[in-house]
Formats: sequence, C-alpha cells, structure tokens
Amino acid sequence: MRNIKILVQYNGKNYCGWQSQPEKLGISGEIERAFFVIANEKIKLIGSGRTDAGVHATGQVANFKCESNIEVRKIPDALNAMLPKDISIIKAEEVNENFHSRYSAKKKKYKYIINNSRYRNPIISDYSYQVKYDLDVEKMKEEAKNLLGSHDFCSFMSSGSSVKDTVRTIESVNLNMKENIIEFEIVGNGFLYNMVRIIVGTLVDIGRGKIEISMKEIIENKSRGTAGHTAPPQGLFLEEVLYE
Amino acid sequence: MRNIKILVQYNGKNYCGWQSQPEKLGISGEIERAFFVIANEKIKLIGSGRTDAGVHATGQVANFKCESNIEVRKIPDALNAMLPKDISIIKAEEVNENFHSRYSAKKKKYKYIINNSRYRNPIISDYSYQVKYDLDVEKMKEEAKNLLGSHDFCSFMSSGSSVKDTVRTIESVNLNMKENIIEFEIVGNGFLYNMVRIIVGTLVDIGRGKIEISMKEIIENKSRGTAGHTAPPQGLFLEEVLYE
Repeated sequence: MRNIKILVQYNGKNYCGWQSQPEKLGISGEIERAFFVIANEKIKLIGSGRTDAGVHATGQVANFKCESNIEVRKIPDALNAMLPKDISIIKAEEVNENFHSRYSAKKKKYKYIINNSRYRNPIISDYSYQVKYDLDVEKMKEEAKNLLGSHDFCSFMSSGSSVKDTVRTIESVNLNMKENIIEFEIVGNGFLYNMVRIIVGTLVDIGRGKIEISMKEIIENKSRGTAGHTAPPQGLFLEEVLYE
Repeated sequence: MRNIKILVQYNGKNYCGWQSQPEKLGISGEIERAFFVIANEKIKLIGSGRTDAGVHATGQVANFKCESNIEVRKIPDALNAMLPKDISIIKAEEVNENFHSRYSAKKKKYKYIINNSRYRNPIISDYSYQVKYDLDVEKMKEEAKNLLGSHDFCSFMSSGSSVKDTVRTIESVNLNMKENIIEFEIVGNGFLYNMVRIIVGTLVDIGRGKIEISMKEIIENKSRGTAGHTAPPQGLFLEEVLYE
C-alpha cells in the first residue's frame, strides 16, 4: 500500500468540521469522496487532528493509504477538480508507510483573529471574532506569556473529552494588534479539545476586565469554570503541523 | 444644512461598484437608501471616488448634506442596522460645509493581494488574484519603484475615461511576499480609471516574463497597449483616503 501525505486548506464555514457526521460529510469526508471519484478506491483519511465546525485551516495535514497508482504530483489538481471550492489540496507527497498525520505530529501552530471594534468588518467577518468591548491588549500580551512551558491545561479543555493526560507544552505565543485587528498565534506540542478557543476567550475576558485572576492562577486551579468563555470557531485557523 | 463625513468598509463582491446603475443599487445607493429609512430624508452621497464592481474598501470616505438632526454618534449603528452585512459604516463625524470627499482628498492608499500559487486558497479566494505562473518577485519590486514620482500615467488608464490631465504623483509603493501571498500597496495623489489594476497586471506580466520592456519605458510610451493586462477587481482594496 502507498502512503500519501496531503496539505489541505479549507474555509470551515459550511462544514460540520474535519470529521464527518452520520448525516453530513465533513472536510475529510469530502476528500475521501473526491478520491473515490478520481481513483475508484475507498480510502480512510487520517487528519493531524479534528477541527471543529466553522474552524478554518491553511495548513492541515492528512494522510491515507491506497492501492491506486495515480501519479502523486497529479493528486492535488485531480482532487481539487472534484472538491467544493472551499476545500483545496495544495500539496501531495508519497511518504514512508509509518507516517501517521496524527501520531507523527510534533507541533501545531494555530492563529486566532479578533476584530476589536464596535463595528462589523465586512471583509473579515467570516474569519474573525468581533469583540466590541475595549481591550487592554498589553495586559493580554503579558498574561499570554504565562501559557509558555509545560502545564496541566485541563482548565482550558471543554467537557466531553476523554483525554487523560492533560499536560501540554506551549512553545511560543504571540499577540499583536494592528489597527483594530488582533492576531494571536500559538505553537505547542498538542492542544486539548477547544483549548485554543478557551485560551482566546480567557484572554478576551482578562482584557476587558471581566476576569480578575491571572492566567497563572487559572492554570493552577485546574478547573474549566475558572477560565473564560470559548471564543467562536470562525476566528480560528490551523496554520501548520510540524513533523520531524 | 449639516455636512456628515462617514468612513465605510465593504466587500464589493455582490455589487456593481460604488456607483448605482439604472437597475441596480451600488454601495452608495444602499447607504442612501438606509439613510432614507432611518431619517426619512433623501441624501446624495459623495464618495472619495468610485470603486468598480467587485472592488473592496476598508477605508472609503464619503459625505452627504442633510437636514436631519440625528445625533452624529448614532449614525453608524443606525445605518448599519439597515444595511446589508457586506457594507459597514465604522465612523461618522460632522464636518465643515466645504468638505467634499472627492475634491478635498489629498492622497489615496490602495492594496492589492495576489495568491501566487497553482492552487486555489479557499480562505482568500474572494479577496485575491490567483496567479499560477512563477513570478520573479525581486524584479517586480525593482520595477514597481519606477512608478514613484510624477508621471503621465496614461499607459495605465482604461479607455472610456474622459480625464484630460493624466499626470499623477505616486508617493510610495511597497511589494512584499510572505509564503505565496504578495501584497502590493500604493499611495498617490490620485489614480486614473483602473490604474492600480493595470499597474498590478503589468507587474505580474513583467514578473512572469511575458512583458520584456521596463516600467519606465511603458510610462514613456504613453500607450495603454504597451502595459500589461488589467488585474481582476477582487484583489483590490481602497484602504485609506487622506485629507489635510
């Protein structure tokens, strides 16, 4: 069996997420369907991780095993011709049979965009979280730094996850404001369910003064209730998955 | 009569442009209609310039005279409540009766986004021009510099314009590539019909080697036929209009 690794971009707006649901194709399901059309072969696509409904990706990685002898360099164009316009395959390569998009991943990079304005921005409204309150961005920057390092991040995990080891390592965080647009970037060795969105919601709540305790205390409390709200999906982008 | 200046953002995708057409409301017409709904008064909205069908704005400026005594600070929310979601008023202020969005404008800043990739980018496809050819970006940067200063830019004007004085002054140009995305920014005291789009099309044709003569020669030739193609509207943003 060949093992094919693909790089995928998508606008998550119209999807139930990466994973298909009983009655609905997710992004992975759309790609599996497209491959069946071009190669008449059923594949099981493995993503580096599941993105939720509405979350976007500019650098999702996935792989699948197949028998088809389709030339690897032809795979992106062939799949794109069969895919909806909001999903795009931008690279394909043949990899070692042991490569697994999820288990082989070493780091992931996410970006989150906030439009800090009283007014809707019609250019980025599908790709950002509009926050109308005044935000203390310097305080948010300071507090974001406390995420760095290895911590038990269970305060930043939505219930419903069965993950047992909730320790993750955050390698870098970056929060920048340009005019009204805040860009938050975070790189870590892994993320819990909804972790980035809860981190962003917590930073927003800290920035507007709704939460008075520090990020450090929230981590130490190990309780979802101490952290802030879950920021909405449309501001979130899976930007990069890094392998060795 | 009061004179109200507004700052407008819009996604141009679904419009025939800033100006209304006989059977179709343009962006200005939508705003005039919204004002009539909130204040029961017909206004004539003057934009800093007309943007074409499909062109976006993050900083269009317009003004209108009115009798209504609506509080100026309430105008953005009131208009936005009546406007389609792809048009947003982000500021309103009362100005001197002599202020005219078009005649008082001193400079304009435009941005153009190119996705230089074989593959469609589903996040920015409505906001960029996909160029599949390899581009010599360093050459494009060099040639863009030759636009600086005061020149007769008639080589970069679409036919159908009745403008007589085709001399304009370009104050700054900036061309940057990050991954596959090229951002081109240009500031000038005024722009001819389709000028930015023809400049971008010409830079692309130079970058891919389709045009061999230099930007300097194209300017000197004073002939539309010498310049490159007109880049499509969806990559173009009116970013800022500057007044004294």
